[in-house]
Amino acid sequence: MTAKPPAQPRPPHPLESLFCPRSIAVLGVTPTPGTVPNDIFRNILTGGFTGVLYPVAPGKRSISAVPAYRYVLDIPGTIDLAVIVFPANVVDKAIEQCAAKGVKGVIVISAGFRETGADGLARERRLRDVCREHDIQLIGPNCLGLINTDPAVALNASFARKMPDHGRIAFLSQSGALCTAVLDYARGQQIGFSKFVSFGNKAGVSEVDLLEYLHADEQTAVILLYLEELSSGRALIEAARRVTRGANAKPILAIKSGRTPQGAHAASSHTGSLAGEDAVCDAVFREAGIIRVTSIEELFNSAILLADQPMPRGDRLAIVTNAGGPGVMATDAAVHAGLQIARFNGDTTQRLKAALPATANIQNPVDVIGDARADRYQAALDAVLADDNVDQALVILTPQSMTDIEDIARTVCRVADSTDKPLTCSFMGACDVADGIALLHARHIPHYILPEWACRAMADVQRVCRWRQSELETVQLPQAAATLPKYLLNGDEGYLSEDRCLHVLQAYGLPVSDHRLCTCEDEAAAFAASIGFPVTLRLVSPQVIHKSEFGGVALNLRDESAVRAAYRDMLARASAHPDRPTVTGVIVRRMIPAGHEVILGAKRDHVFGPVLMFGLGGVFVEILRDVTFALAPVGPAAARQMIRQIKAAGILEGARGQPPADLDAVCDCLCRLGRLVHDCPRIEEVDINPLIVAPAGQGAAVADVRIRLGPADRAAVE
Amino acid sequence: MTAKPPAQPRPPHPLESLFCPRSIAVLGVTPTPGTVPNDIFRNILTGGFTGVLYPVAPGKRSISAVPAYRYVLDIPGTIDLAVIVFPANVVDKAIEQCAAKGVKGVIVISAGFRETGADGLARERRLRDVCREHDIQLIGPNCLGLINTDPAVALNASFARKMPDHGRIAFLSQSGALCTAVLDYARGQQIGFSKFVSFGNKAGVSEVDLLEYLHADEQTAVILLYLEELSSGRALIEAARRVTRGANAKPILAIKSGRTPQGAHAASSHTGSLAGEDAVCDAVFREAGIIRVTSIEELFNSAILLADQPMPRGDRLAIVTNAGGPGVMATDAAVHAGLQIARFNGDTTQRLKAALPATANIQNPVDVIGDARADRYQAALDAVLADDNVDQALVILTPQSMTDIEDIARTVCRVADSTDKPLTCSFMGACDVADGIALLHARHIPHYILPEWACRAMADVQRVCRWRQSELETVQLPQAAATLPKYLLNGDEGYLSEDRCLHVLQAYGLPVSDHRLCTCEDEAAAFAASIGFPVTLRLVSPQVIHKSEFGGVALNLRDESAVRAAYRDMLARASAHPDRPTVTGVIVRRMIPAGHEVILGAKRDHVFGPVLMFGLGGVFVEILRDVTFALAPVGPAAARQMIRQIKAAGILEGARGQPPADLDAVCDCLCRLGRLVHDCPRIEEVDINPLIVAPAGQGAAVADVRIRLGPADRAAVE
Repeated sequence: MTAKPPAQPRPPHPLESLFCPRSIAVLGVTPTPGTVPNDIFRNILTGGFTGVLYPVAPGKRSISAVPAYRYVLDIPGTIDLAVIVFPANVVDKAIEQCAAKGVKGVIVISAGFRETGADGLARERRLRDVCREHDIQLIGPNCLGLINTDPAVALNASFARKMPDHGRIAFLSQSGALCTAVLDYARGQQIGFSKFVSFGNKAGVSEVDLLEYLHADEQTAVILLYLEELSSGRALIEAARRVTRGANAKPILAIKSGRTPQGAHAASSHTGSLAGEDAVCDAVFREAGIIRVTSIEELFNSAILLADQPMPRGDRLAIVTNAGGPGVMATDAAVHAGLQIARFNGDTTQRLKAALPATANIQNPVDVIGDARADRYQAALDAVLADDNVDQALVILTPQSMTDIEDIARTVCRVADSTDKPLTCSFMGACDVADGIALLHARHIPHYILPEWACRAMADVQRVCRWRQSELETVQLPQAAATLPKYLLNGDEGYLSEDRCLHVLQAYGLPVSDHRLCTCEDEAAAFAASIGFPVTLRLVSPQVIHKSEFGGVALNLRDESAVRAAYRDMLARASAHPDRPTVTGVIVRRMIPAGHEVILGAKRDHVFGPVLMFGLGGVFVEILRDVTFALAPVGPAAARQMIRQIKAAGILEGARGQPPADLDAVCDCLCRLGRLVHDCPRIEEVDINPLIVAPAGQGAAVADVRIRLGPADRAAVE
Repeated sequence: MTAKPPAQPRPPHPLESLFCPRSIAVLGVTPTPGTVPNDIFRNILTGGFTGVLYPVAPGKRSISAVPAYRYVLDIPGTIDLAVIVFPANVVDKAIEQCAAKGVKGVIVISAGFRETGADGLARERRLRDVCREHDIQLIGPNCLGLINTDPAVALNASFARKMPDHGRIAFLSQSGALCTAVLDYARGQQIGFSKFVSFGNKAGVSEVDLLEYLHADEQTAVILLYLEELSSGRALIEAARRVTRGANAKPILAIKSGRTPQGAHAASSHTGSLAGEDAVCDAVFREAGIIRVTSIEELFNSAILLADQPMPRGDRLAIVTNAGGPGVMATDAAVHAGLQIARFNGDTTQRLKAALPATANIQNPVDVIGDARADRYQAALDAVLADDNVDQALVILTPQSMTDIEDIARTVCRVADSTDKPLTCSFMGACDVADGIALLHARHIPHYILPEWACRAMADVQRVCRWRQSELETVQLPQAAATLPKYLLNGDEGYLSEDRCLHVLQAYGLPVSDHRLCTCEDEAAAFAASIGFPVTLRLVSPQVIHKSEFGGVALNLRDESAVRAAYRDMLARASAHPDRPTVTGVIVRRMIPAGHEVILGAKRDHVFGPVLMFGLGGVFVEILRDVTFALAPVGPAAARQMIRQIKAAGILEGARGQPPADLDAVCDCLCRLGRLVHDCPRIEEVDINPLIVAPAGQGAAVADVRIRLGPADRAAVE
């Protein structure tokens, strides 16, 4: 009894019942205009829906003249989609009737679930469970609804005021109220949508399911996401990687709000969800090919360019302007955003020289001068777009009294027809330029009020290009430990002792210098002699966390007598200490020669699972916060990428006449650490601080490490 | 015979002839509509000008029915202002006639001067000289003209299409073509102007003169500047400091384009001017109280807030929204821009709780929920604005189907009338919200399409507040050298020898360890013994620039015999070297103990004159480019500010258990270095790299220094 999607040869996707229903029941409609239940019903009714619509409104004969039913079960024939606007406390009853009726898709608009606290959460779980049991696709609860502009369906099942234009951009939003603003903003910019979904509390269908659906949707070219909370981070990444690469690649642009701690706090009180660390989110989106943007304006500025123009072959930009100042500002913005200002070849400058007046600037940015009319724009654009050194062009216009704005707009449209390079425009101003802009909009040439916006959008397109061109590394995991030590499985929550930490790292092949946990002075002296001096001694005691402050660390011991003295001293301190700490022993280790100090970390993000961290040691992390993240595990290429991403990477590459550090060794350590946290879900946090890195070819060595275990019953994040 | 400004008691400002003329001649008018000469004449004629207008159009009886004259001298009565649109080659003749006629102000619209090369530059200089000789105020050449919206004058002497609305914002632009875009943009946003000036090549009146004039202009509240090139940097700074502080303080917001090298290059081919270093410009604007912004949108977003709302008492922001998502995004943007999210006191949360539904968020950002009508906005705004912890409020609205947008706009207007705290709004969208936005515009409540823009504007206002509250330091110059060494006055261009560098620094009280230029081994050994070991030896030879590579540096010499050996070795190297370098001697210096290494620099910027530079040594400058600039000379407060501005400042303040460095000593060095470059205009560049800084109280010492002199005939920049 599934809905038949209009003229689609593929087997119907499970979400077709939501996007392309042939029959809809709206449950809980009231006759009062200006209320959510009535607005939604009327929006479907007046939006041109091509199927059949039934209001379920107990006690009413009709709604807006459409015959009404008391229960969904009373409706004759099949129902593909139910839109539920009943109050929260009767929603589960309504869903059960839908299940009995064989409904395949449900949109729950009603609020009053998870976002209201514990009772609401329980109510939401019941809802989810009923839908799962009956294989019903659920959108919501607590959402604005769903829009499909496909003329074959024409469904506005939302309380947005108007049906948007049909277009190639899909928009998915966790925030419902934002949707109304976005729709109104887009209408002002003449931006159309393919699908528009407010998914609310996502008790059933999530952003991941929607991404999969839109990937296959032929009417969608670009996918926009607004997220406040990420629930299944790994699944999102996997889905995004599938969507954004390959033959049917579609760009995903996303706003993830809650960037600041205060914003994250506001988001959590708004959605009842916890926020992950924002820098991690940045790194993860980058690894998933999701273009993260920070504002609605950037979201749409970039989306229209991706949706409406061909992809550029490179990042070299030509600017054609009738105003020097905006040309300079656009150049600044382009360079700032990471684009190249194209250098014209000789032919181009000759062509420009021949076509433009002597006072024109024939270098990039090309200034056709304030009194330019359409002919000069035509000549300049023809010349620069024919240049092999130009990948794309930006047309800037300021409205002088002699500027024939509409003629220039028509010229740009003609030029766009004759080139396969992307074009963007900025007709600066508002009123005088309005008619010209309308002509550009009609021909789907991306227009921006300010040239700077065009540059940022083109830079986002470059991010998409770079992502598509990059190799996705198939992570070859380093060798796992033959058997995981028992204490990693059954040990107590909290920090592992130092000898165990070293043992674990060693089991995963991380470079730990020769060491032994010694329990008497003679053993310490003999072991030190066997591995060679200098050595270090470190007290091991479950009660002594801050070893240095306690006097539990001795460095650079150069002979046996020094080892013996240090050993005795440590034990004397311990027995004299008022807390009477239990001494497990003393670790004797070969001293590591000086080198670059770096920090390797791993932690289990509650959204994305295991994540690696890398930074230079000391002030670079503590003062400059110069660190980078990646999803664990990583392969060598991703590890190398992490190193390159820190601002101070140049230091490791051999600054100021120093030899370059052994980055291969660092990469290897990152890969092995990634494998470790991947294998051992109980590991909450690893902090190798520092790893001491020798010059290239000479390796690296772990100087100090802390490992913290989570609760014994914890499962892996996925 | 100067113009009588309408009802102004002060003696007329010299620029009144330009802004408030009673009679105008336009020289070079042609009868063809759509040309610059005709457009300008018609703009004055139809713009409502309250004085008398005469066209000078040889061979024509009239222009647009206004009687025309052959020469300006033929016009009966006095002429206050001449607007010249003749071709460039006859402009000087026209100006001479204006001088003979007693004209006091001239606007030269015509292009074809400095921007076209050497001939044009010569033409421009003649123009400037004639105007100076006859005490004529000159705007231009190569400009769009000037607008004064004062209804008592109503002058549109420009080729902008329409007269802008009267308002409190003045706009000054070096780019003419940008002006037309700005006027059109502003009209779309219903932004009015007091004065609007395109000053072009600024051969006569400069941005500095205009700032002075606008400071006194009662109709101007905020001054906006678009600059591509700065000609008289010091004068601009002095003027900006006067304008932006004190009883009649007016904010100045500026775009200085050419931020990137490519942009600067584009600017130089556009204006024929050289660009200074952008980081220096940033520092200088900050010191002058000029709020530097990077885009037209930020310029006006901040200007309307400054022009139309009271100044806030602090930086604590309350957000009231009917949409959670935009509330989160606004919180992110506010925090990112440096604002505080206000914490409400208990009364406020009680009031909010009483007035709002249970599902509302009564913490900041306050979410009045999607179905809110005007009454909820009223209650929420009344509550948060009454809170002493709130300095300003942002109202966010998204257009749900039940949102009574205009009622809410009217409510905001009423609330604005009843509070002395600034209000901003973001009614998000475009079409549905248009009428509401119009109501806000009419009441001059700043409205922004996106809440993020409102936050950035409020952050700019905070920059103005902080500047006004900051103490302007009266620089107490450190003691100058009793007499400047002759070689600073008459020496050759290029690098000073090391002994002279040390001598100069010592003369200005910079900490240079005991040293002597020794010319024989015995002298070196004896001097070393007299100052105490360890010492360093450094070869001095005009031909040896890279001393270390040459083997001309010996460090950490601990006794006389080591000194003797090193001395002999250096001289042997020199005499064995194929280049046969002349050896001046060997500098023996007391070795400086290890400490923090910092770099102090000074250079003569061609726009701003002497500028100081500060950064941490080594990789912090070379890899991280973490440096800061300030105008020289500086006092202790400005010097301290420089140190604080580097990102790695925390390292000097005592990171990771290290003692704090002697920052007082660093400040003192910066002050003395500033005095040195202030006193000696021939010094082109000083590079103290490194200054070694001991822990607090223990001083600092110059380890190495280079000083470069400019040409012997150079004068100080100002």
